[in-house]
Amino acid sequence: MTSASSPTPPRACFLAIGNELLSGRTEDANTPVLARALNARGLRLEEVRILPDIRARLVESIVTCRAAYDLVFTSGGIGPTHDDITAACVAEAFGVPLVRHEDSFRKLEKLFADGTFHGDFNAARQRMAWLPEGATPIENSVSTAPGFALGNVYVMAGVPRIFRAMLDWLLPRLPSATPLCSQAWHAFDVYEGDFAAPLTRLQQDFPTLDLGSYPFEPDATPRNERGVTLVAKGYDAGAVRKAGAALRDLLGRTGRQVTKGEPGA
Amino acid sequence: MTSASSPTPPRACFLAIGNELLSGRTEDANTPVLARALNARGLRLEEVRILPDIRARLVESIVTCRAAYDLVFTSGGIGPTHDDITAACVAEAFGVPLVRHEDSFRKLEKLFADGTFHGDFNAARQRMAWLPEGATPIENSVSTAPGFALGNVYVMAGVPRIFRAMLDWLLPRLPSATPLCSQAWHAFDVYEGDFAAPLTRLQQDFPTLDLGSYPFEPDATPRNERGVTLVAKGYDAGAVRKAGAALRDLLGRTGRQVTKGEPGA
Repeated sequence: MTSASSPTPPRACFLAIGNELLSGRTEDANTPVLARALNARGLRLEEVRILPDIRARLVESIVTCRAAYDLVFTSGGIGPTHDDITAACVAEAFGVPLVRHEDSFRKLEKLFADGTFHGDFNAARQRMAWLPEGATPIENSVSTAPGFALGNVYVMAGVPRIFRAMLDWLLPRLPSATPLCSQAWHAFDVYEGDFAAPLTRLQQDFPTLDLGSYPFEPDATPRNERGVTLVAKGYDAGAVRKAGAALRDLLGRTGRQVTKGEPGA
Repeated sequence: MTSASSPTPPRACFLAIGNELLSGRTEDANTPVLARALNARGLRLEEVRILPDIRARLVESIVTCRAAYDLVFTSGGIGPTHDDITAACVAEAFGVPLVRHEDSFRKLEKLFADGTFHGDFNAARQRMAWLPEGATPIENSVSTAPGFALGNVYVMAGVPRIFRAMLDWLLPRLPSATPLCSQAWHAFDVYEGDFAAPLTRLQQDFPTLDLGSYPFEPDATPRNERGVTLVAKGYDAGAVRKAGAALRDLLGRTGRQVTKGEPGA
């Protein structure tokens, strides 16, 4: 259950683009990185969509999500090959043409000419400097593929190292709000069903927070332990502290070991 | 780019449910497992949505996705605590009530009574036997939380071990079609921009296949290598073999080492 939080943070959506994420070939490693970065800035990641390299599907998702969310982030599809169609799809979603971004073009031209980047500045690579009209580049020091911002849409690379470099540059330029606070308590050898009823009452006592219950399994902890993690989360630091203490007491009544670190760490 | 494949496989969508997947606390580990299992059965995973525990959002997503896709799979939100709302949301999306599923209830009652499962069969745990009217349980040997199928929606647990157990049971009961074939070739120390143009022409030669180009980075391979993986994928095994050979030749012309295994393995 999620209750209305106060204050309401800006809401964000992440579109992870690429057939390889839907075939089992590649795991999306960018969602947790983005989630933690947004949380720290008081922005709330509220939905992720993993989408294939199909033009109509991408355009439709960008149109829908940029209307539904305050901020939309994308990863993938900004390289030089035929399956890199994100810029064209963002342009279509905004109803603007793709135009050559002269600053980006000259910068890429120079970096290929002076050998900073490998290879010829051929037609495929020049294509990377074509951005939707009105877009602003997202800078990064590690790759040729330029990300860009247009309206509330932020287009980044899929390769995790480049995604992180772009996000590092972008974050201080995003709006910010009250950061999310959370407290997590872990108890070993307990079961969710043992305290579901008092946990429900506790959620009613803290209507502006999200209280979550997450079982952990032997195969997911270093010491092969099982148990439950209870989490209190919200934008009111005082309420989170109080709810955290109440969660610790609740788990303490199970008579089991209760820790605040990571389970099994 | 994705072209129309022939034959067109049944299209699937996966809804991974849980605030913890959107906060950076937990990585969704189920998508690659589901993707590979569906591929092998000739079903195509075409979209993943990671969604928060917000009732209105879940109901809306289930309604939209079960109309848009042949099959919808979900993970998460089927335990005994207040934040486990998937069954109620599926019921609302189908416009049916939650009813006590008598077989599941008696089975759970027995398993708690004989000590197979820990604890009392209290109200919170009894709640797990309430399923949308008309739902059929998805069996699994490792957990108390029952998954279920209703229409084209398949509801499973979020904990990876339980998700896999439910999927193992479910897979042979799903429709099947021609399995997806793929060939992947890796070349080291090459750059996508070096062969983007011939790769585009090759995609045009194989309109029923998806040809993909995926750079890999030193931090993602055991031997710290970088390069590009080219993949040919589709439902026509003969065409995939031919396209695979053409990709190998294309990479071979770069004069670099070309392998068929995993990069760096």
